[in-house]
Amino acid sequence: MAELVKVAVDAMGGDNAPGVTVEAAVEALKASDRIKVFLVGKEDVIKNELSKYSYPQDRLEIVNAGEVIEMAEPPANAIRKKKDSSIVVAMKLVKSGQCDAYVSAGSTGANLVGAQLLVGRLKGVDRAPLAPLIPTAKGVSLLIDCGANVDARPAHLVQFARMGSIYMENIMGVKNPTVGIVNIGAEEEKGNALVKETFPLLKECKDINFVGSVEARDIPAGGVDVVVCEAFVGNVILKMYEGVGGTLIKEVKAGMVSTFRSKIGALLVKPALKETLKKFDLDQYGGAPMLGLRGLVVKTHGSASVTEVKNSILQCIGFTEQHINDKIQAALDIDENQ
Amino acid sequence: MAELVKVAVDAMGGDNAPGVTVEAAVEALKASDRIKVFLVGKEDVIKNELSKYSYPQDRLEIVNAGEVIEMAEPPANAIRKKKDSSIVVAMKLVKSGQCDAYVSAGSTGANLVGAQLLVGRLKGVDRAPLAPLIPTAKGVSLLIDCGANVDARPAHLVQFARMGSIYMENIMGVKNPTVGIVNIGAEEEKGNALVKETFPLLKECKDINFVGSVEARDIPAGGVDVVVCEAFVGNVILKMYEGVGGTLIKEVKAGMVSTFRSKIGALLVKPALKETLKKFDLDQYGGAPMLGLRGLVVKTHGSASVTEVKNSILQCIGFTEQHINDKIQAALDIDENQ
Repeated sequence: MAELVKVAVDAMGGDNAPGVTVEAAVEALKASDRIKVFLVGKEDVIKNELSKYSYPQDRLEIVNAGEVIEMAEPPANAIRKKKDSSIVVAMKLVKSGQCDAYVSAGSTGANLVGAQLLVGRLKGVDRAPLAPLIPTAKGVSLLIDCGANVDARPAHLVQFARMGSIYMENIMGVKNPTVGIVNIGAEEEKGNALVKETFPLLKECKDINFVGSVEARDIPAGGVDVVVCEAFVGNVILKMYEGVGGTLIKEVKAGMVSTFRSKIGALLVKPALKETLKKFDLDQYGGAPMLGLRGLVVKTHGSASVTEVKNSILQCIGFTEQHINDKIQAALDIDENQ
Repeated sequence: MAELVKVAVDAMGGDNAPGVTVEAAVEALKASDRIKVFLVGKEDVIKNELSKYSYPQDRLEIVNAGEVIEMAEPPANAIRKKKDSSIVVAMKLVKSGQCDAYVSAGSTGANLVGAQLLVGRLKGVDRAPLAPLIPTAKGVSLLIDCGANVDARPAHLVQFARMGSIYMENIMGVKNPTVGIVNIGAEEEKGNALVKETFPLLKECKDINFVGSVEARDIPAGGVDVVVCEAFVGNVILKMYEGVGGTLIKEVKAGMVSTFRSKIGALLVKPALKETLKKFDLDQYGGAPMLGLRGLVVKTHGSASVTEVKNSILQCIGFTEQHINDKIQAALDIDENQ
């Protein structure tokens, strides 16, 4: 039997911790026998939550951490000062090699800062991007970068494109994934200074399938497999997904019960519609991996459901078993020797 | 009787010109007796289209322009070389004061370049932003800037905020409209360099109701009335609206007819749902005004429908009758004397 994939879970992170995180860990253990979970946080609190469930005890360990980093704390400061927080203790498990991966629904800022400072980047990686999968009409695309590094430079975007390609090919099984750069028009001469500088660099990359610019309107249709952009733009794209989707679905639901006639119709379409909307539910796709680190860091929404946290934990299996980091390292090494 | 508002329409611009543009002009004349339309383009072609309709002939004039700027032409070059194009001729009607406003579904680039070069900016205006109305759960918000000026500076964004406020208050009737800057978090210290520099400047503006950062996810819910951002981000927001909305509606429709049961339900909910989706149809809101120019320029989608072009023409009435430009000029003058 292959070695178990060891995943550290920030039991205290997120709006509904530790209830959601502990339940998700139990669910993940039941869903796969290829993982071992390390629940990091206040031991007594975790034990209390765990007492509600039965689970394979040999594949779950509690690692005590007495402090909690709150959502609103200034990230860099929190990481530096709260050495006994669940985030810091869990990340150190990855750094030391005791764990392969780490999952948190806690403060985005603290996780992003902590990942760079504590887990550390792979050799040659300048910035570690946050890269969520987003639902499209065709399946999913990878949106890279989405929150970690504002004001990125062209060379960073090129690394994002490479890392994103490797992820989509190896984890999502997309053969020769298409890569596009987010732009305000299809032509090479369009764009802001960053995009104009990055475009020719991407064209030169022989190890990715760069297809040019992708306009934001074509992203939900599944225009390209890997959507490259700097973090501010990526954050806007991700949140427009949530915002437009959420508002539209609310309006559609309200519209459906606005007349007596439509209310009856709504009852009949509901089951079929539920399937459709599930496809566009970001929760289904687990959390967002941060790529380019010495170990996998997966960040899920603060308001993540049990399903999302569970899927985030399970996502670590493929990442570790497919040796994604070795592949990223190899791709960047080739680049340096060119 | 007050003087008629005189609107120049680029009859040759857009994917479906001159059919859509000429029909829209006729519809606008029928909808309001406060406007006169100048159809600019190839006289024989326009006459041929017009022969299909009856319309108030005393309020429609044809202005001949022998050339057409195509969608894909390099904008600056096209504006400089094609002096007899419908865009150039129509804009000169505004510059000379023969017309108050101008509407086009033609090349965005050529219109943006032409507006700055030919119509010209108001005194004190550094950049003229493109500011479409976007549908929200509460009504509409103004998204400013959305395509005219990439890589804007903080001072530009402050002017956008002021001009957008004046537009929302006077044209849309929103009392003391709320103004937010698009950001990746709610806190003042978040954001990229541009946002961090702009935030304190907006806080100092006493003539606008600045409420701080707005996250992209809150825009469709109607978080603020005036959404301030630089053009690249604005373009992404606008196109995500179209993209997510379009894809989601397509999926919902497909989901509704996926089973026999849901097909019957779909027939029953259809009329109610149509009303809801109409609210989220960007076409309903006419085109996007470019603010800060010596005259109004309204740019509609290349694929604009008759309704959108008609609404764009009608939009010019309020803008002119409310003396928006005088109000913008006054606001910027106060600023200069502060």
